[in-house]
Amino acid sequence: MLRKMKFCPCLSGLSTLQLFLVIFVLFMTVPLVTHYYISNIGGDTEQQRYLSRSKLDYNKADLDPLKPSKLESEINDLQRIKVSVNNELRTLESKRQKIRTEISGYEAHVEALRAQYESLNKEMNQVKLALEQLKLEKEDAVLQYIPNIKAPQRILTDLNLDVNEIIPKPTSILSQSCRMHTCFDYSICSLVSRFPVFVYNFQEVLTDSFEINEFVASSVIKVFGKNAYVTEDSYSACIYILVVGELENQNFDKSALESMLHNLPYWHGDGRNHVLINLANNIHNIDIFSGVNTGRAIIVQSAFIDSVYRTGFDLVIPPVIEGLADGPVWQELPPLAPVRRKYFISFWGQSISPSQNQGKFFDNFNEGLYKINQHNQNQFRRRLKSVSDVPTIVSIETQIVQALKDMVVRMAQEVHISLSCDEASPEGVVSEWALCGSEEQRSEILKESTFSILIAPNNFSIVSTTGFQTRLSESLKYGAVPIILGNHVTLPYSEILNWDKAVVFLPTARITEIFFFLRTFADNDISYFRHRGRFIWETYFATTENVIDSALAVLRTRLQIPPRPVQAEPSPSVFNASFIPLKYNGPETEPETDEFLGPKEERFASEEFKRNYTKFFFRDSFNQPGDPFHLYPYTPIDPLLSADARFLGSGFGYRPIGHGVGGAGKEFSESLGGNFQREQFTIVMLTYEREEVLMNALKRLKYLPFLNRVIVVWNNQIPPSVELRWPDIGVPLNIVKTSKNSLNNRFLPFDIIETEAVLSIDDDAHLRHDEIIFGFRVWREERDRVVGFPGRFHTWDVKNKSWLYNSNYSCELSMVLTGAAFYHKYYAYLYTYSMPQAIRDKVDEYTNCEDIAMNFLVSHITRKPPIKVTSRWTFRCPGCPQTLSSDDSHFQERHQCINFFVKVYGYMPLLFTQYRVDSVLFKTRLPHDKQKCFKYI
Amino acid sequence: MLRKMKFCPCLSGLSTLQLFLVIFVLFMTVPLVTHYYISNIGGDTEQQRYLSRSKLDYNKADLDPLKPSKLESEINDLQRIKVSVNNELRTLESKRQKIRTEISGYEAHVEALRAQYESLNKEMNQVKLALEQLKLEKEDAVLQYIPNIKAPQRILTDLNLDVNEIIPKPTSILSQSCRMHTCFDYSICSLVSRFPVFVYNFQEVLTDSFEINEFVASSVIKVFGKNAYVTEDSYSACIYILVVGELENQNFDKSALESMLHNLPYWHGDGRNHVLINLANNIHNIDIFSGVNTGRAIIVQSAFIDSVYRTGFDLVIPPVIEGLADGPVWQELPPLAPVRRKYFISFWGQSISPSQNQGKFFDNFNEGLYKINQHNQNQFRRRLKSVSDVPTIVSIETQIVQALKDMVVRMAQEVHISLSCDEASPEGVVSEWALCGSEEQRSEILKESTFSILIAPNNFSIVSTTGFQTRLSESLKYGAVPIILGNHVTLPYSEILNWDKAVVFLPTARITEIFFFLRTFADNDISYFRHRGRFIWETYFATTENVIDSALAVLRTRLQIPPRPVQAEPSPSVFNASFIPLKYNGPETEPETDEFLGPKEERFASEEFKRNYTKFFFRDSFNQPGDPFHLYPYTPIDPLLSADARFLGSGFGYRPIGHGVGGAGKEFSESLGGNFQREQFTIVMLTYEREEVLMNALKRLKYLPFLNRVIVVWNNQIPPSVELRWPDIGVPLNIVKTSKNSLNNRFLPFDIIETEAVLSIDDDAHLRHDEIIFGFRVWREERDRVVGFPGRFHTWDVKNKSWLYNSNYSCELSMVLTGAAFYHKYYAYLYTYSMPQAIRDKVDEYTNCEDIAMNFLVSHITRKPPIKVTSRWTFRCPGCPQTLSSDDSHFQERHQCINFFVKVYGYMPLLFTQYRVDSVLFKTRLPHDKQKCFKYI
Repeated sequence: MLRKMKFCPCLSGLSTLQLFLVIFVLFMTVPLVTHYYISNIGGDTEQQRYLSRSKLDYNKADLDPLKPSKLESEINDLQRIKVSVNNELRTLESKRQKIRTEISGYEAHVEALRAQYESLNKEMNQVKLALEQLKLEKEDAVLQYIPNIKAPQRILTDLNLDVNEIIPKPTSILSQSCRMHTCFDYSICSLVSRFPVFVYNFQEVLTDSFEINEFVASSVIKVFGKNAYVTEDSYSACIYILVVGELENQNFDKSALESMLHNLPYWHGDGRNHVLINLANNIHNIDIFSGVNTGRAIIVQSAFIDSVYRTGFDLVIPPVIEGLADGPVWQELPPLAPVRRKYFISFWGQSISPSQNQGKFFDNFNEGLYKINQHNQNQFRRRLKSVSDVPTIVSIETQIVQALKDMVVRMAQEVHISLSCDEASPEGVVSEWALCGSEEQRSEILKESTFSILIAPNNFSIVSTTGFQTRLSESLKYGAVPIILGNHVTLPYSEILNWDKAVVFLPTARITEIFFFLRTFADNDISYFRHRGRFIWETYFATTENVIDSALAVLRTRLQIPPRPVQAEPSPSVFNASFIPLKYNGPETEPETDEFLGPKEERFASEEFKRNYTKFFFRDSFNQPGDPFHLYPYTPIDPLLSADARFLGSGFGYRPIGHGVGGAGKEFSESLGGNFQREQFTIVMLTYEREEVLMNALKRLKYLPFLNRVIVVWNNQIPPSVELRWPDIGVPLNIVKTSKNSLNNRFLPFDIIETEAVLSIDDDAHLRHDEIIFGFRVWREERDRVVGFPGRFHTWDVKNKSWLYNSNYSCELSMVLTGAAFYHKYYAYLYTYSMPQAIRDKVDEYTNCEDIAMNFLVSHITRKPPIKVTSRWTFRCPGCPQTLSSDDSHFQERHQCINFFVKVYGYMPLLFTQYRVDSVLFKTRLPHDKQKCFKYI
Repeated sequence: MLRKMKFCPCLSGLSTLQLFLVIFVLFMTVPLVTHYYISNIGGDTEQQRYLSRSKLDYNKADLDPLKPSKLESEINDLQRIKVSVNNELRTLESKRQKIRTEISGYEAHVEALRAQYESLNKEMNQVKLALEQLKLEKEDAVLQYIPNIKAPQRILTDLNLDVNEIIPKPTSILSQSCRMHTCFDYSICSLVSRFPVFVYNFQEVLTDSFEINEFVASSVIKVFGKNAYVTEDSYSACIYILVVGELENQNFDKSALESMLHNLPYWHGDGRNHVLINLANNIHNIDIFSGVNTGRAIIVQSAFIDSVYRTGFDLVIPPVIEGLADGPVWQELPPLAPVRRKYFISFWGQSISPSQNQGKFFDNFNEGLYKINQHNQNQFRRRLKSVSDVPTIVSIETQIVQALKDMVVRMAQEVHISLSCDEASPEGVVSEWALCGSEEQRSEILKESTFSILIAPNNFSIVSTTGFQTRLSESLKYGAVPIILGNHVTLPYSEILNWDKAVVFLPTARITEIFFFLRTFADNDISYFRHRGRFIWETYFATTENVIDSALAVLRTRLQIPPRPVQAEPSPSVFNASFIPLKYNGPETEPETDEFLGPKEERFASEEFKRNYTKFFFRDSFNQPGDPFHLYPYTPIDPLLSADARFLGSGFGYRPIGHGVGGAGKEFSESLGGNFQREQFTIVMLTYEREEVLMNALKRLKYLPFLNRVIVVWNNQIPPSVELRWPDIGVPLNIVKTSKNSLNNRFLPFDIIETEAVLSIDDDAHLRHDEIIFGFRVWREERDRVVGFPGRFHTWDVKNKSWLYNSNYSCELSMVLTGAAFYHKYYAYLYTYSMPQAIRDKVDEYTNCEDIAMNFLVSHITRKPPIKVTSRWTFRCPGCPQTLSSDDSHFQERHQCINFFVKVYGYMPLLFTQYRVDSVLFKTRLPHDKQKCFKYI
């Protein structure tokens, strides 16, 4: 339809049926009319001359019998007549010519006038709209009740002088009753303090008898070295961190530890706002603080007994047995599919009773705990008053053992349960179930297990042991869904993590029901648990960095201080500061359509950091894939404001269609409408060595509504030629210098991107303005998805059990190419900083697949497919030089990319969609007085 | 395009440009060719006859000079020739006729053969596909590893005999250390027990000195009377409930209460699995169990001090000051908009210090608590060892008072803060901030407040007071977002509710930062908090029924027992059991298209109750609008299984397009593909007094793929005429009798709806098969939304500040009419049982608006707009009698419905969408060897 329009725009009003009728009528009449004229009217054609001649011949034959003299005179007469007629004809002809020239002159004039009128009219409408926009903006300004909050600024006030009085300030306190509101000094941690953390140099502070485990020492130094919260300024710090373990020699003098703590330079008598970290590097690690007066300090470690652990104050963390300071870790993780593995349930452990625990180096530590246990048990007995009633640990244990043994008998094939290690006496804490074998041996079993049983220590006074935490960590790592028997244990970071979705809790009493219970889990549920387990392990468990960052995140969240804001990428200009690029002065590119697509607006940025202090309340950010450790200026999922609130005082920035009355056509084009505030978008265009193509692409962007800025990512390491003439497109045009030629540059979160919406576009992709505007409107509804034009999909290669990339026409698609797609700037941050480096490396290795990587990332985070808009499939301009994608190796690489990315994520994150999105009245027959949303889409 | 296709299908392949060129060439050549023929070749036209005549004339003129005799013979010759030529012509003509007949005979034959071949071929393909389906189903049967779990069945085993040994069974225990794993007997609460609850008849059990408050007594009896978990059978019960309060006289003898408890018939010495409920009906209600040995019983009340309250065991509940036994409650609630109210912050209260509390009837209760407070404070002092360090309650209070007073000074206009009641001595517990004024006075202020400050009792040992809970309840009810100063209080149902999203917690120390902090809240965040607050109040706070149901839900969730399954509606046949309806034997309705749209399958139901024991782990169901108190056979949001898992052993029920290779055309039609397992849909058709229309609608459904069943809801209270002939459409056809003519019947969750997908359709709505199948495929991707054809929207009437309904063509829509729409059966349950009765009543009052009600419900729950598919806007069959919707009063009613529904929900839940959904290759130009997804959509 569109191409026809270019030939004959006047026909656009006619429906196809009408067109056909007209053509039909023309076919019937034209030949007859032609025939009539050709037959009867004199002219200059061959046929007519022939006809005239035959007439003359006929006359001759008629005149044959007449006399010669009469004949001669008649011929003379005729010739005279002929001459006079000819003259007359010539005069007429010249007159006709003159009139025709005159007419075309008039016509040109009229045309010029009309054009002038139209452009004036258009301009007037634009001005009218602009005025209206200004009025709305003025209204907004009045409405805008809240001051804009930027990323929080660090302020160093003397707040503590005022506020210090509020919380009690005892010099000594029984640390056992500490809670945040009784033991923590908020006055030095204001909401806008940005959570400064002072870290003691443990190598200086700790005396020789407290030598720290080598891995812990080195990795902690490395991790704190790059932590953004760490400050050197002890005066302004909010919390004070001392790493006290893991100690090489845990058989130390408790009073020596206590006096060392009390002598810390900022201990101030009670250790307020101090955090003592005991990071476990092996399962021998025990609660080193029992029996030590730690004052108001918060204790962070893996092993706790309930007389020491203070809920909501102390912190359980996972051990770092793996020995990794920081990432990446995906290589170590098994794939998440198949869902059902060889063993339905596995357990390998041995119960440690006091008598069993003899002769190994564990004695020392266990002795400590054993004593406490004895003490606790005695307390317990005293509480129970009548000793005969005491449930012996053995009685519970017997039940568990019996139930597990029954399981083995009933379904030997499906379970892998072994209740004793092959070693003489396994390592562990009295009353817990010891880990057996080496990590490798255990991992072999866990990788084959659908579920893994974890039995809480039989002694209810144990909150957590390093052995138990190690078992949990390994289960999560190797994808065996943890089934925790016993509700009395505390899992790491339980303040922020929603463990219910990653592990299954069962009270010990339900051991007899466990098999029935687990049988009710459908494949998708098991898969869900396993995915979340992997997510938690990768984000919070895997390395020293993860563990330290997570512990700080819990404390920070308690204090309601937002994380530090994520950093945008700088965007240096490709031009020297002194160089002024030439302006293009040539003719403007003819717009494809004179359709009115949006109001003329001033440029404005999306509001940033609006939810600093509300968003992070929500535990959600810690429980979703993404990056919980940074504050983002905006995310794709913000709560919606209801429609009535917008009309009752909260209308700031909303642009309802027809001021709330709705509508199509002009009313629709004038306002963005929808459920979100007005906004604009930024175009990011990647270019490499195609200056002419680029210039044409840029020229086409002139007058594009809602456009905020155009960023050209100059991937060529040679700067643009100085003679290049850059068009003025009405919005800022930034040509950004890159450090290397990389397709990953396409998704850099440049600081000059001031809008949430980013339109990523290839320099040779030719999109019409109406297509862009429609895509933008759809994206505004589906902000968390990639919304674009060319669809692609993944297919399963049954033979090779691997994935293939496919670009055929298809009714089901799973990717939208980012050569022409909208996405949220949030994903640019994630792509650049959070996505595993291996993926960006692969993109650079092949100079390919960056679009696939983006689709993987977004689908991984949202578990939604992308959205394809309009019927467009291709975009390449006909005259442009061949693109990369034409050769076969390009496809081979893309197959390989997909399979590699699946390996990194552990599963195939892409999802299918079977529909496409068009504008509401596309191809809809409307009454004549009704308008469409867009003329062509 | 579609209509052109019908006229000249052969042109569909040509592009518009090609078409134009052809027409142009034709225009140039046709007149010339025509002229040439017309001029030179003999024919039957007027002109040609004239031309032949003139030729003959000319011959005559030539022959003129010849002799008569010669002439005669020549004439004779000519006549002979003429006769012979005539004869020959006649013979030829008859031959021609014969051959023509023969040819048309052959043609008919060929046509018949072709038709036969095609139908055979089609059938063969169908059989082939059916075979393949069977093969897949067989594979599924092998794959189907888990036994299908139905809604849990109650079983009365002797489990307790086996399991009883597992948990300790002391006869006396210090109740203070109780936790679920030490004090609760799981053995009588198996996972499949369905949570039977035995309720003591308190009127029998309680002695005269324990008279229960009249409202509490009557409402509790009413509520337990209709509670589905209550059992009469004390032997099989899982928990035993005794309502002990609110007591009319709280100044009772504690030892009398204790001995009464210990004499309960099922107390068994330790009160295991007992639940003691003290339901507060006024703010005087205090912790009646302090100082009473309650053994292993769980205590449920509003007021607790920390020496009594056992986290994770006891339960804090809201008071029921309102005095409502059960719902509805929406009438009492103010609208949620505008977001910003007159006062930014409000607080009205008075601190109660021991000396202040004199002379009112409160003394008795306060005295009790006061003693405990003194005791606690002394303990606290002892713990602190050095008395000089003790933070006096006054010092904290002073800070708060100072900060609040500062606020008043700094912004008198925006805050409503009053630190004293007008009464001499306000009622309340020592150290808390008493409520001032009457409920009505307080509500007036709260309705005008954006935020409401709640100050936790200054005594840290108070976990909760009835006054504090009342303040919370009122803030939630009147939409003032609660800001809780002090983290040490416990909110009701905190085990299951995500309070972080409804209230704002701040430690008391942050009082100086409160104003800055609240200023950072954007409108949409405040609105979000207020919405959640209202949701929590309506669902868990409002009435005795809510409170009791919620308390039971917390206990049940702790035990991991799923709620009782929701009940489906019975679907009695409109026919007597003996009556056999007549079969229609007439001609089949011609299908609109012979397009192949899906495989021939056996009927199968969607799997039900697959996630009984996994789903309810998730706290999500308690924190989303919907119905947390029932178990649903399925919900629209189930976790997705990743694509690779489907190909690696978990392929049960998945039907990837082209077995994983993807594709368009035939491959696409053969499989459902997508991210979910295969499924079918049920058609529910509402009908009233239009038998002919109905029969035609039914006939059209024959051969519709993926159709599981058709349900005709017979709204006419007169049964169908006995002569009516019902078509056989290949799937069961149920004509369901209704109890009254109601449009709400359209959404009844009939037990015979065995699929998740329901296509709701009017009897006069004419949808083509391809449209239905496409809609079904889209719904499978957007299972939580209404997916349908005719779009409508709501508009804002600025003048009347109210909403209007609008059915114009529009580019933005917010409703999809359920006269032709897919929805999830889950919403049928919610519409019928959970949606406020007032809405269904309004539908019945107007006999209108049921579709608007459904759109409100779904948008309220999902916060998403509906989805409109294809370009269809209307459906009415041309010949059908006028429908309801044509008269103006119909529209007036719909305006009124919208405004009424907004009042019930408290806000406008509808959301806008600006796009429509089409099939992926709709209107896409394809190469000739490629196929579309659907021919016409």
